[in-house]
Amino acid sequence: MNYPNNIRKTYNKPISYGNRGMELENLINIANETYIDNDIAVIYKKPTPIGVVKCDYSKNKITEAYYKSPSTLDYNGVYKGYYVEFDAKNTNKSYLPLNNIANHQIEHMARVMKHGGIIFLLIMINNECYILPGNKFFEFINSNDRKSIPYEYIKEQGIMVPYNYLKGVDYIKGLDTLIKEN
Amino acid sequence: MNYPNNIRKTYNKPISYGNRGMELENLINIANETYIDNDIAVIYKKPTPIGVVKCDYSKNKITEAYYKSPSTLDYNGVYKGYYVEFDAKNTNKSYLPLNNIANHQIEHMARVMKHGGIIFLLIMINNECYILPGNKFFEFINSNDRKSIPYEYIKEQGIMVPYNYLKGVDYIKGLDTLIKEN
Repeated sequence: MNYPNNIRKTYNKPISYGNRGMELENLINIANETYIDNDIAVIYKKPTPIGVVKCDYSKNKITEAYYKSPSTLDYNGVYKGYYVEFDAKNTNKSYLPLNNIANHQIEHMARVMKHGGIIFLLIMINNECYILPGNKFFEFINSNDRKSIPYEYIKEQGIMVPYNYLKGVDYIKGLDTLIKEN
Repeated sequence: MNYPNNIRKTYNKPISYGNRGMELENLINIANETYIDNDIAVIYKKPTPIGVVKCDYSKNKITEAYYKSPSTLDYNGVYKGYYVEFDAKNTNKSYLPLNNIANHQIEHMARVMKHGGIIFLLIMINNECYILPGNKFFEFINSNDRKSIPYEYIKEQGIMVPYNYLKGVDYIKGLDTLIKEN
């Protein structure tokens, strides 16, 4: 996940569908590190929530634990004084299935927006990457009962974001657009 | 850590020094849940970062993992549009030792403040609870080489916060004061 710098920066294998989730996570990590290093934004991936059951204290070692489902989105931080929170979603279909966004996550998104935070989904679809602003997400799910968001909606309502293996998913200009339009 | 509501709300054991860290965490959890339930703020404890070494995928069970040291503060979220991040510190001494705040955490605090986020420490000391605003923290560490912050400094420069076992550490009015003075 964290390649040493020299390896990471020459790493240019094309995206394979098999480990696309990891690829997108890598691309976001690269961008976030770049934003911190260049004093642009302070945004981190939250640690994955893990429930610890057993611990061997003599060795400081956890011996039984389980992944828990997160109740918030994966990334958050501060940009130009704004609270920013987003989730990364990738799909190898021509639509984004909605079943991998939990109800309590949707409630959380609505809550954060109500309190003045910026919410979006960062979606990798058809080898393109888009910011789908929180209000566009809610407009979609509130206006119909579909179980997925079609590519066309994401393309029309989203903000396209460039990505490459050097800079990662460079979403900050897209975020500026989102802030201006808000 | 998460008591069922009925148990939690009648829980009034006095603070014991032995598990004070956990007590403070409980008091903050209660406050944060109250703020979410009453639509006041959306602030969460971040999951503890854990490095997973071995996983039994057939049982979805993690069999070897280790706690990692966090590079950010423990709590963050959004309040009135502000990005808010803080750490809980408790001490049974008449001062707050600085050796349990890592250098990379201090760098992170400075970075977040620079980008317009609100940073503070929530300190339990002498059975009193204080918000120590980020700028007061930096004023202290930049003006001398002491390895701890004395109670008197925290009392003078901090904002006292009420707490009880029903409402937890009710820090939101203190946060309002911090925002006004900023």
